[in-house]
Parts: sequence; C-alpha cells; structure tokens
Amino acid sequence: MKQNKKQNNATSKLKIIPLGGLEQIGMNITAFEYEDSIVVVDCGLSFPEDDMLGVDLVIPDITYLKNNQDKVKGFIITHGHEDHIGALPYVLKELNVPVYATKLTMGIIENKLTEHNLIHNVRRKVTKFGQNINLGCFRIEFIKTNHSIVDAAALAIYSPAGIVVHTGDFKVDYTPVYGDAIDLQRFAELGKKGVLALMCDSTNAERPGFTPSEKTLGSVFDTLFEEHKKTRIIIATFASNVDRVQQIINTAYKFGRKVVVEGRSMVNIIETASNLNRISIPDNTLIDIERLKNYPKDKTVIITTGSQGESMAALSRMASGMHKKITIGKGDTVIFSSSPIPGNEKAVTRIINELFKKGADVIFQDTHVSGHACKEEIKLIYTLTKPKYAIPVHGEYKHLKAQANIAMELGIEKENIFILNSGDVLSLNEESAAVTEKVPVGTVLVDGLGVGDVGNVVLRDRQHLAEDGILIVVMSLDAASCELLAGPDIVSRGFVYVKESDELLEEARKVIEKAVLSCLKKNITDWGKIKSTIKDTLGEFVWKKTKRRPMILPIIMEI
Amino acid sequence: MKQNKKQNNATSKLKIIPLGGLEQIGMNITAFEYEDSIVVVDCGLSFPEDDMLGVDLVIPDITYLKNNQDKVKGFIITHGHEDHIGALPYVLKELNVPVYATKLTMGIIENKLTEHNLIHNVRRKVTKFGQNINLGCFRIEFIKTNHSIVDAAALAIYSPAGIVVHTGDFKVDYTPVYGDAIDLQRFAELGKKGVLALMCDSTNAERPGFTPSEKTLGSVFDTLFEEHKKTRIIIATFASNVDRVQQIINTAYKFGRKVVVEGRSMVNIIETASNLNRISIPDNTLIDIERLKNYPKDKTVIITTGSQGESMAALSRMASGMHKKITIGKGDTVIFSSSPIPGNEKAVTRIINELFKKGADVIFQDTHVSGHACKEEIKLIYTLTKPKYAIPVHGEYKHLKAQANIAMELGIEKENIFILNSGDVLSLNEESAAVTEKVPVGTVLVDGLGVGDVGNVVLRDRQHLAEDGILIVVMSLDAASCELLAGPDIVSRGFVYVKESDELLEEARKVIEKAVLSCLKKNITDWGKIKSTIKDTLGEFVWKKTKRRPMILPIIMEI
Repeated sequence: MKQNKKQNNATSKLKIIPLGGLEQIGMNITAFEYEDSIVVVDCGLSFPEDDMLGVDLVIPDITYLKNNQDKVKGFIITHGHEDHIGALPYVLKELNVPVYATKLTMGIIENKLTEHNLIHNVRRKVTKFGQNINLGCFRIEFIKTNHSIVDAAALAIYSPAGIVVHTGDFKVDYTPVYGDAIDLQRFAELGKKGVLALMCDSTNAERPGFTPSEKTLGSVFDTLFEEHKKTRIIIATFASNVDRVQQIINTAYKFGRKVVVEGRSMVNIIETASNLNRISIPDNTLIDIERLKNYPKDKTVIITTGSQGESMAALSRMASGMHKKITIGKGDTVIFSSSPIPGNEKAVTRIINELFKKGADVIFQDTHVSGHACKEEIKLIYTLTKPKYAIPVHGEYKHLKAQANIAMELGIEKENIFILNSGDVLSLNEESAAVTEKVPVGTVLVDGLGVGDVGNVVLRDRQHLAEDGILIVVMSLDAASCELLAGPDIVSRGFVYVKESDELLEEARKVIEKAVLSCLKKNITDWGKIKSTIKDTLGEFVWKKTKRRPMILPIIMEI
Repeated sequence: MKQNKKQNNATSKLKIIPLGGLEQIGMNITAFEYEDSIVVVDCGLSFPEDDMLGVDLVIPDITYLKNNQDKVKGFIITHGHEDHIGALPYVLKELNVPVYATKLTMGIIENKLTEHNLIHNVRRKVTKFGQNINLGCFRIEFIKTNHSIVDAAALAIYSPAGIVVHTGDFKVDYTPVYGDAIDLQRFAELGKKGVLALMCDSTNAERPGFTPSEKTLGSVFDTLFEEHKKTRIIIATFASNVDRVQQIINTAYKFGRKVVVEGRSMVNIIETASNLNRISIPDNTLIDIERLKNYPKDKTVIITTGSQGESMAALSRMASGMHKKITIGKGDTVIFSSSPIPGNEKAVTRIINELFKKGADVIFQDTHVSGHACKEEIKLIYTLTKPKYAIPVHGEYKHLKAQANIAMELGIEKENIFILNSGDVLSLNEESAAVTEKVPVGTVLVDGLGVGDVGNVVLRDRQHLAEDGILIVVMSLDAASCELLAGPDIVSRGFVYVKESDELLEEARKVIEKAVLSCLKKNITDWGKIKSTIKDTLGEFVWKKTKRRPMILPIIMEI
C-alpha cells in the first residue's frame, strides 16, 4: 500500500493545519486536507484570558473551513472535554457537517446540541474503537486510549500520503476504572505499517516518569473514609471525571454512605454516563439532594463541582452559605480531588481558607492523578509508532518544546520535528515536510448571545473603563447661534466617589466651561474640534490632580 | 522581675491588636498597647485583589491609631519588604511618629520617604541587633534573624505584662551569605526568662523539614555558569534579595563575566545595600547598561527584575522586544531564581513560553530557596522560647491553622493558641488571655494620587463597566413645555462594536424614544421617573437581544 501511495501521488501532499490550540490553552481544532477532502479533528473552546473583560468563551475563527466548505467531510472528536467539543454548537451553525465520536463523547455533545436547539439539524455517528470511517479520501480509525474522561480516543488518519497518528489527550493506564487499557498493540501495528507523523499530547511532557493509574485513588478514598468516619465527607472534583465519581461511589457504598451529586455540569454528565452504562451505581446509593436531611451526616457523601475555586460553582456556594440546601461547617471533611489548573491557584486557595475558617477539615493533597501522559509514556508511544515526523500538540509552547526534546532524544531528526503555530499549513509526505503557507486563523469572542461582536476596540474600551472609569461631559448647543444652551455637565462612573469629590468635579466643570466658551468665542463651529478640546483640557486637568486617566466622553446635543 | 510585674499590674493587661495582614496577604501591621503606651510593629501594604480594578496599592485603615495618637510611641519595622514597610509613607502623613529599624531596612524606608518628600519630617532611628529601645512602658529589643533580605529582625517586646517574641519573617540559616546566623541563643535566653506569647511567621508552616540555606544556591549558580559558558546569562530574581544578587555577582566574577543590574527597584536597593556595605562587589564587575555592547555576550550577566512575570518589569520588556537596551533571543540563557508568588503562576508561564519562542534557553527549577521557616524551624523557635500563648502570624488562614497544629503538637494548650482576625483585641497577661473587643480596621485603596477616594461604589461601577460596558442615553428637554428638543441619542463604550451594530442601536433608540414620548404624553415631569423608565426599557431590550447587562446612564439636559 505504501508503495502504491508513493506512485499514485507523487505531487499531492497531506496538509495538516491547526486552526487553534497552539497560541492558547484549549480551542483544539486541526484540519487535515488532501486534495478535495478535509476532515477536522476536535472543535474546542478556550476560556477568556484575564484581559478579555466580560467575555464568556473563546471559539476558533473557522474562515478557512467556510472558504473550503465543499471539501469538509466532518468533525472527528477525540473526547468529551470542553477544549475539544465546546465550540461545536457555534461552529456547526455556520458549517453543518456530520460529527463522529465515541459513545460518551457523543452523549455529551448531544447535551450541548440540545441546549442550542441543534439536535435535529446535525448528523451524528457514534463510533466504536477499531471502527473505520471513510471520509473523502481519508479513512479514520478510532483507537482506545485512557484519559480523565471515559471513551477517549486516539485516531489513525489514513491519507494517500501516509498514516498520521493523533493521540488525542491520553495517558497509559494499565488498570483503568472503566473499560480497557489503551490499545498499545494497535499503536504497535501502525508503527509496523509505517507512520508518517505522530501528533502527541504534550501536556505533561516536562514531567518525568509515568502518570499513576486512576485506580490508585480507590485505596486513597478508602483510607480517607476510614479516617473520617465521624464526619460528613464532601469531595470536589472535575465534573466530567466519571471514573473518579465511580470510585468515590464505590468507597461510599463500602462504608454505607449515601451519595449526593451536586453542580449542574456534574449532574448532567453523570446522568449521561449512567444512561450510557459508563458508570455503575449500586441501588439505593445515589439520593436526591432533598433527601439529604433524612440521613445522619456521617452517613452521607456529597460529590460536587467547584474544585477550581469557581465562585459560582456549588462548592463555593456551600462554603459561603449561599447554597440553598447545603452549608459546610464544623463536622465536615472537604476533599479536593483535583489540582488547580494554572491560573486558578489563588481562587482555590481562597476557598480552602474559607473552608478552614468555617471549621471544616480540608484535604487537598495526594487525592488526584493527572489524565495526561508523562515523559516515559510519551516515549512509549513514539517507540511503538516510530513516526517519520513528530508534531507535538496540546500544550503551551514550553510543553511542545519539551516533547520536541523527547522526540530528538529518541532519534527523530531535528528537521523532522515541527512545533506549529495556528494557521501554519504543514505539507508533508514520505519525501518531505515543510510549512508551506499560512491560512487565516484567530479567535472569536462569545459574550452573552453575541458571537464575534466583541473585539479589540470593545475590549480596549472595557479595559480603559475598568482601570479608571469614565467622565462624560454633556452640553447643549444652539446649532444656529453656536450658543451654549445648557451644560457643560460632568457625569462620572468608576472614577472617584462623587459625594466626596464635589470640589474636584466642580473645578473640572469650570475648566471645561472656560475652554468651550473660548472655542465658541473664536467661532469654532466644528464640533469635533470642541470635543477634542474638551478631551485634552479635562484629561490634563484630571491627570494633574489625580494621576489617573479616565475615559473622557464629550457629548454635544444640537438643538 | 516577673514577680514584680504580677504584683504591680494585677488589673492591666497587654493588648495585641493586628490592624491588618490576617484577612489578606501583606499589609502587616500590629499594635501593642499597654495602658497609655502603644507601639506599632510594621506598616506594610498589600497588592490589589483581582476585583479591585485600577487600584494601585492597598494600605491599612489606621483609624484606631489616630483615635489614640497621643499613646502611639513609634513604628518598629522588622525588615525592608513592601508588606512590612510599604504603607509607611502614607500612614506617616497622618500619624507622624518616630520609626525604628535596622540599617538596610532604614535605608530602604528612607528611599521611600525621599520619594514622598517626607525625609525631613520623619524622625528615624537606626537600631542594632541586641539594642533596646524604650518606648513608653515598652522596651523593644532587636534580635538577629535570617530572611530573604539582609538585616531582618525579630523583636522581643517587653511589657509590664510579660515578654512577647515576634519573629518577623524569618528562616534559620546556619550559613548565611551576609552576616551572622539567627541569634538562637537569644531566643533561648528569652525562653529561660519566660515568654508570655510567641508571634511566629506561618508562611511555610505547611511544609515539612527545613528551608535550605541561601548559600546552597552559590554552587547551583557555579554549575549553571559552567554549563552555559557560551551564552549570555540573564537571571531574574526578587529586587530586594541582596544576598541572591551577591551570590550571582560572586559567580560572575569567578567566571570573568561583567554584571549589569536592571530594573528600577533592584537598582535602587542594590545601590542602597552597597552604600551601607550590605553587599560587596569586586571592582570592575558591575558595569553600566550602556557599556554592555562593549563586551562579548558570553562575558556578561544581566540580573533583572520581572521574575513574577510582571508585564512592565525589565524581563518582560526584554522578552517582548520593548526594552530599549536589551533584547533576549537565541544565545541567551534565562534563569528564574525565584518561585511564583501565588496568583502569578500564569504570568510567569506566559513569559517562560515567550522566552522559549524567542529561542532562549530557560531554566526555572531548583534555583531558588525560600526565605521563610518550614515546620522544623518553627518547632525550634517554639522549643527555645517556650511561650505560654501562641499567636500564629503572617500567612493565609490555612498557614496560621498549620502553625496552630504545630503549637498543639508541642504541648501548647488549645485554648492558649489564638488565630486572630484583624481588629481583634487580644488582652493577655500571665493569668489569662482572651479576645475582649474589636477595633475598627479596614483597607484604604490607593489609586494614583488618590488615597481612599476609591471605595466599594467606584469599584462596583468599574466592575460593571468592565463586564459589559456602558450605554449613555442623552436628550434635551424643554423645561417649561416638557418637549423633547433633541435626542434621545445613544452613545456606547465597551458594549458592542458600534460599526457592526448600527441596527441594534437604532432599534434601541426607537424603543427609548417611544418610552420617553409616552412619559411626556402622560405629563410625567419627574425626570427621575423618566430616567428610571429609560433604564428599565433599555435594560430589558438589551438583555433580550444580547443577554448582556451594560451600565445604562440616562442624561437629561434641561433647557
């Protein structure tokens, strides 16, 4: 087949085009293009950076796909995390092509499509591990892996130019809680056949050794439950970690405790997982939150969202007394079965302090394992697949770089390792590989119902407003006589506490009045000029007095 | 003496009153009051929380001290870090009392006082270790400790009710880079005399073992310089860590490299330290940044600020190409001799990624030691001083709690351990101790030149503006006839990109116009009512269309 391929397609190359995920955490989406076929792997969102004030979500700009929509055969989704599926409902509205995913992944996608009223408009196919999907000149095979969510898949992407193996997010778990271990044999078989390129998860590429099995936490929970027999136990973890919830339920059952699951996203996912037989819950173990009060505290466990310190999540509300049904205090043991995602450290610490203050016992160490492969696991995948080209994916630049170093250590030539940027078109076949062009990429900000109506100008204004507030100067002018009919008045928001700054604002008003009258006296009737005079005069005055630069907005009403 | 004390002062108690530092990191300030004497230990600032938009600094509310200003004898400063001295210039403007501190600490304070034009108005006394200062009925002794800044002191506070030992921020360093090891003998002597209460640094109370000596980094730098003989070396560290800079200079000298110190705060502190003989720099080692270009790259070292990823600090500017004299790229090795302060993780990672992308080699592990005592060191101090009461200080609640657990482990009765809140008045003597009252405390926000003119109302407005922007509705009304003369017009900032939202805004304008005209038709002349009609109508319209809640500001001009 390899022979065949080379002969038939001497001129055509496979193009690998990441459309997101390389300049930011999340927003994973990669197009694979060969002649008139495109398949897209994943379609994730990312969360707004600190300077994207008021923005809810960030999704990829799919201009390139829309410009080539006749070619696009479908979305292949590796697993059900937000950074791999979150943009689907937005993107499918603009580019309605079929979606392929394994069972739980599709279940979670369907929840989203239902929320967005898209469930009847989108073609979907649930795939099995080992199954092959033909899409244009591509064939896609789903390969079983392990990750912090059930039903995660790696992909073998067969193209006329060769086979690309994409690991998705993965770890090697020889003793997974649900289902089989990663299908290492299949990776080996592909390696024997000949792998053109490996696109491998870089998240933990800086960490030595192996990531421990999810199952190691089972005995950790047993020990913790043994040590805290007299308290209620509250465990915060990631909403989508079905295996973690399974293990907590197993331990709770062993200790005769009833379990409440709390937090909307977790309730939804556990319900979906339960319907799809991805979690098995013993009868009479899960109870409704309303029934919690019927049991003694030391006979209950609450599994909840909020392990990242999110202020609106269930755990935060329980800690601050804002939760309607549950209040945490003395006699509670709170376990964080999670580690803070970079950027959330402070929020997590804040809630830990709050819980301690309320009198709860808090355990936040050694109760989590990662879902991503460490160095030795990455080496294993490289060694099994023996790719010609290495394309580290999924991670910040330092992680990609760390995987590139691993690849080099394993004998892959430096010039065959590609750390790509979003928009790079990597054209490759057995003969050569190079970044040959750039396609348009970018981010689209979602704020409320608005998709893309908040951009740099709006964000810059929000930052300016956030920093020093706004001073609005209004006046009415007689259009004919250029006479000042009313004002100037100053209204301020977010600048100073007005009641205590009467004098400052009155002084500012006088400064502007003088400037405006002087303009009018000089017969300046260009209101743009008057406005810029107001901006300059007031800006200078305020800077001198306060060393602040509020936004200044002159409004002239013409009568 | 102990005997004497008990007889003479049967009724009076020592009051320990933290005025800050317990609800937030930083802002350390504690009053010690006995009858008509008050001494204040430290006077720090804290940095604004994420939700304090636009705020530069946070300082303590010293209402209690001002209400008792006749009693206040002076400020005793333990060491020269911002969280212990930063509020002094602001506070001394309102309460001008003498300041007592060791040599380098005073040098750094004097830099601040000079900046604030206060240097001629504030009485200052440089103290030596072992020296005693009499202040009202208190006697204060400065005790040598080790910390990440030279000249750090613990305090023995002698009061008629007994001796309080305050460790300041400390670690136990048997082999310090500059000066002597912590004066453990003096802690032991005080313990023999009888210590009423120990106020001990809790920062690392969760960490087992001992903090390594600062000196261990000397050989780390030697090794790194040996391994990177062919590149320029750039080392980012804390501006005030004089010993760290000393060690880097020592290694640079050994390897025949010239050193540039860059970043305003670091340049200032190193100059001060050098003037006070707290650092010794071999001749012809330190060069001016202008002369850098005269030396081959592999013969230079740059020590710089910015190790916390601060976007305006020298390192960030060098990495992004915004620095006037230095650009980092290929052929540079950047060493982070620091660890991220909680909350700064993301910013630090961002700059590490940027440096990697620019082609620099980046080293960010095992090149820093903490300046705070770990568990075993804390146990040592407790065991030497054998206090009756334990008052954990300096740390988040979880750290204070961890130290309380250590104290209990060492046999201090649970009821003799006090985790205080700011404003608590802990009244104590040999017989008993209890929180007996509360004094007013709080935070004062500093924004530009304004101290305290930004408060909750302004911050709430800034947050609202930051989240969804502002819609300003202006119109001119005839005061007599209640006729609409001009408008309503809508001006928006930070809401939507106006050019692409013409229709939405025009529709909104019509909705308001209709509402206003309907008010006027009904002869509603109460403009407050018209304004609230505008707010409600527009708010509802915008929410329905966008699911956003911008600030709505109706302005009516009366003519």
